[in-house]
Amino acid sequence: MSARELVVLGTASQAPTRHRNHNGYLLRWDGEGLLFDPGEGTQRQLLFAGVPSSAITRICLTHFHGDHCLGVPGVVQRLSLDAVAHPVVAHYPASGAHWFARLRHATPFHEVADLQERPVCGDGPIATGAFGTLTARRLDHPVESYGYRLDEPNGRRMLPDRLAAAGVVGPDVSRLVREGTLAVGGRTVRVEDVSVPRRGQSFAFVMDTRLCAGVEELAAGVDMLVIESTFLHDDAALAHDHGHLTAREAAGVAARAGVGTLVLTHFSQRYTDPTAFATEAAAVFDGPTVVAADLARVPLPPRRGAV
Amino acid sequence: MSARELVVLGTASQAPTRHRNHNGYLLRWDGEGLLFDPGEGTQRQLLFAGVPSSAITRICLTHFHGDHCLGVPGVVQRLSLDAVAHPVVAHYPASGAHWFARLRHATPFHEVADLQERPVCGDGPIATGAFGTLTARRLDHPVESYGYRLDEPNGRRMLPDRLAAAGVVGPDVSRLVREGTLAVGGRTVRVEDVSVPRRGQSFAFVMDTRLCAGVEELAAGVDMLVIESTFLHDDAALAHDHGHLTAREAAGVAARAGVGTLVLTHFSQRYTDPTAFATEAAAVFDGPTVVAADLARVPLPPRRGAV
Repeated sequence: MSARELVVLGTASQAPTRHRNHNGYLLRWDGEGLLFDPGEGTQRQLLFAGVPSSAITRICLTHFHGDHCLGVPGVVQRLSLDAVAHPVVAHYPASGAHWFARLRHATPFHEVADLQERPVCGDGPIATGAFGTLTARRLDHPVESYGYRLDEPNGRRMLPDRLAAAGVVGPDVSRLVREGTLAVGGRTVRVEDVSVPRRGQSFAFVMDTRLCAGVEELAAGVDMLVIESTFLHDDAALAHDHGHLTAREAAGVAARAGVGTLVLTHFSQRYTDPTAFATEAAAVFDGPTVVAADLARVPLPPRRGAV
Repeated sequence: MSARELVVLGTASQAPTRHRNHNGYLLRWDGEGLLFDPGEGTQRQLLFAGVPSSAITRICLTHFHGDHCLGVPGVVQRLSLDAVAHPVVAHYPASGAHWFARLRHATPFHEVADLQERPVCGDGPIATGAFGTLTARRLDHPVESYGYRLDEPNGRRMLPDRLAAAGVVGPDVSRLVREGTLAVGGRTVRVEDVSVPRRGQSFAFVMDTRLCAGVEELAAGVDMLVIESTFLHDDAALAHDHGHLTAREAAGVAARAGVGTLVLTHFSQRYTDPTAFATEAAAVFDGPTVVAADLARVPLPPRRGAV
């Protein structure tokens, strides 16, 4: 299993289908597990995906339409049933705090898990840690909606031949990375001498929105963009009326932003052939494109070159 | 499709499994569709069962533990999304009205369906109609819990040979049933002359409870008893601690009550072999027994003889 991968739990929009559960995505990012927009049934989809509830460290809701959050009660109750020991942080649009309270306390249960609410009050960073920085950015939908972006700090890629020439081996490599310099046989080796700058990985999650500045800023240069394409472009008028994107628009974002891997999802049940989304996207974006399917696992692409 | 059948939507107890969704049962009873205890994912289970939301006329909750009601938000929102035109009546323990309010208004949606709440305030009949009488009876569980029972009025079984001898044919038969008497060739035929009494069909739904008087009264003589058997009898102490029944106890109820078809369900995930429930029940109850499986359809057995 990749240490960084997207586990797709559900890919439907308003109505589930036989093949698509309501929304749900778990981003596994080293020790973090960010659960985005858990729709109804997410608890069981996690089971089908072979992911325990303890893998969840953070829940991020873009907005409070049911297909993006009716799985919250089941997930929250499951965290307590499984006695998950680590804190789980929940982000959601602050204007919907009363909705979150209903979902969190939907029915009586013995709450033992440590769920910490960190509502999103506007654009900007909402969490930082070893995983990097998590940022929220307002989207354009009939109800207040935020997209999310995760950025790993830039780092350095170690060069094996230079490490060998400098005599740095084994555990000394991580010590050099950690401390910046290392004394080897009377000389001081600097990390800069044996490595080159490496761009941090980045990921963006963009749901229910029309095209807007927020979409472009979230997507800018990310390694993986998960983005709704509820409609095909023939139905663009319908998409815009309801505050949604078409596959062509989503792919256009990816092309302008120079993303690595594009993941299309949140499909209207009106379309029965998922390849139509890929075809529409391919006309606009020539990078790797995944038309998300339930229970698919999509690895983060490798880090891309220098800073 | 049988006009009267149980559509099993989910059969797990607290935690779903790969093969068992959380609870959920639709009793199709002529034009009525009684949805009992919809757990999370019921909306999609209905889809898998090929049942539209418009088939639901009534929602009956035994209690407010999550595995018995976290599907309410999805079902309620789906009724509006599908613009279901007929009223849908919801019954639940009145002491949990604040929980129902959260489930009904869990997230913002455009409510157009006509959902009418009729909380259950104690033992007794809660609804009557062409379908018969729906009765609630208190159970014994750590939170207030009610079982439900549906009784069709007793009627009459028409005797074809006597109808023919009396010269009553075609649409006149239903006219005779409706009006009680019919003039045929100068004579008056009474419905009693051409029919015998027929017992009305009955159905009981018993979830999360220890053995108690309510269980016995709900089950008494019903044609079909759906009853929880969360545990096997080896774990009887555990069952009683948590306010549950074992398969042996559930079958004992069926035997004492003289039920027609026994349907066992709400199984703990700790048991991997469902035949163990059947074996345990068969030692106590010799009637037809169904160990419920998701998406099974169980027809109501034929009406049983005279009153």
